[in-house]
Amino acid sequence: TRAFHPGITDDSFIFRQLLDYKSYTYTYLLADSTTNEAILIDPVIETVERDYRIIQELGLKLIAAVNTHVHADHVTGSGEMKRRVPSCKSMIAEVSKAKADLKLKAKDSIKFGQFELEVRSTPGHTNGCLSYVWHEKGMVFTGDALLIRGCGRTDFQEGSAAVLYDSVHTQIFSLPQHFKVFPAHDYTGQTMSTVGEEIKFNPRLRRSKSEFTDIMNNLKLPYPKQIDKALPANMVCGIYDDISTASSV
Amino acid sequence: TRAFHPGITDDSFIFRQLLDYKSYTYTYLLADSTTNEAILIDPVIETVERDYRIIQELGLKLIAAVNTHVHADHVTGSGEMKRRVPSCKSMIAEVSKAKADLKLKAKDSIKFGQFELEVRSTPGHTNGCLSYVWHEKGMVFTGDALLIRGCGRTDFQEGSAAVLYDSVHTQIFSLPQHFKVFPAHDYTGQTMSTVGEEIKFNPRLRRSKSEFTDIMNNLKLPYPKQIDKALPANMVCGIYDDISTASSV
Ligand SMILES: [Fe+2]
Ligand SMILES: [Fe+2]
Repeated sequence: TRAFHPGITDDSFIFRQLLDYKSYTYTYLLADSTTNEAILIDPVIETVERDYRIIQELGLKLIAAVNTHVHADHVTGSGEMKRRVPSCKSMIAEVSKAKADLKLKAKDSIKFGQFELEVRSTPGHTNGCLSYVWHEKGMVFTGDALLIRGCGRTDFQEGSAAVLYDSVHTQIFSLPQHFKVFPAHDYTGQTMSTVGEEIKFNPRLRRSKSEFTDIMNNLKLPYPKQIDKALPANMVCGIYDDISTASSV
Repeated sequence: TRAFHPGITDDSFIFRQLLDYKSYTYTYLLADSTTNEAILIDPVIETVERDYRIIQELGLKLIAAVNTHVHADHVTGSGEMKRRVPSCKSMIAEVSKAKADLKLKAKDSIKFGQFELEVRSTPGHTNGCLSYVWHEKGMVFTGDALLIRGCGRTDFQEGSAAVLYDSVHTQIFSLPQHFKVFPAHDYTGQTMSTVGEEIKFNPRLRRSKSEFTDIMNNLKLPYPKQIDKALPANMVCGIYDDISTASSV
C-alpha cells in the first residue's frame, strides 16, 4: 500500500459547506474536532432537518446559529434549529434590529472550542451585514457583501453601493490574498474563491468606487420574490409562531 | 490585528468543487500550486465555459479531463475542454470502451505536478467505474460508486448490486476513516462526507451484502431521462461531432 502522510491533513476542525438548491444559499458548519463544539453560519429553514441530522451523526454540540444578515431571499433556520437544540444561541448584528439571543458588533469574537471567528462589519447590502473571519484557518464568510465574482444588491433594505464598496475594500480585500472566500450564495455552481482572486477578477469590485456605484445603480433587478415573507420571519429568527406579531409592528 | 498562523493552512495545492445545478453533478479541479499543473474530474459539457474561465484566471495548465465513468445523466465536458486546451488529455476506464486519449486501469496513477491520484476499480454502477484516491491529502473521488449516504443505481448499463457492494467495501471502506469522500453527485446539498461516516451511516452500504442487494433490486427507479442522449455522447468523450457515428455503431 501507499505512503500516507497524516501530518499534512489538518484534522483539528470540521468544515462542511451545505447548499439549499431552492435559494442557492450556502450554510457552513464549523466545529472543533476535539471539543465537538460547532457553529452553523446562515442556516436555511428548509434544510434544518438535514443539517440537524449531520450535526447528530458527527456527534457535535451546536452552540450557535450565526446569521450574516437579515436575508431577503429565504427564511433563516435559526429558530427551527433552536427548537431542536435548546443550547444553540441565535446570533445576528445588533444594528439589524432583528431578534436574537446574542447581538453582534464589529470586533466581537465567536468562540467554538479552541477556535474563534472575528466579527467584521461589512454594511452596504444591508446595514447589519457582518463578515466572519477565521484567521487561523484562512477563511472569511462574507454573507452577501462579497459574492464570487459578484456582490449583494444595494437597491433595497438599507442598501448603499458606496458603503458596500468601502466595506469590501477595507474589511475583506485587506485580508491576506490566499484567504478563502465563502459567500452566502452562488448562482453559478462555484463553492469558493479567494481574496486575491476577487481583488483581481471581481467584475464590479475591482473597479473604482464611482464605476462601482454606476454599475450597482443601473442593475435594474426585479423585486425579490421571497422578500415579503422572508424579512418579517428573519427579523424574529425564523420562528413562524412569531411572524404575525412581527409583521404587524 | 490578529495572530495569523500561515503554517497551518496547506497552500501546496488548489482544490475546487464545482456544481452543475441541472444534473446535480460535482466537477473537481485539483492543481499543484507550485507547478500549476491541474486536472479536472468529471467535467460537464454545460459548465465547460465556467470551468475554463476559472482555470485561466488561476493561471493553471490543465493536463487532463478525467472521468469516473460513462455517465448516463449528463454529457461529459472532456471533448469541449480539449477543444479549448489542446494539451488536455481525456481519460476514462479502459473497460468502459469509451473513446479517450488515455485508458485507465486499477493501480495506474494520474500525476499532476508533485501529486498523484491512485486509480481504483470500483465497478457495480457500471463496469468501468473508477475511484481516484489522493492519499497525501486524504481524499477519494468516488464517482457514482459511493454517494453521500447513498450509491449509484445498479439496474441499467452493466449494473450489479453484488459487484458494487464488494467494490465499495474492498476499495473505499478500506481507506482510513478520516479520508474525505467526494462523489460525482449529491441531490441533497451536501458537498462531502468521510469514509468513516459512510461506513457508519450509509443506509444501504452499512448493511450485509444480501440486505444491500435486496434494497438495490427493489428501488423501482424511472428510466434516466438523459440516458439516450448522454451515453452515445459520453462514449466519444462528449464531442458532438462524433455522435452520429457513435450512435450508429
Ligand atoms: Fe441578502
Ligand atoms: Fe452514473
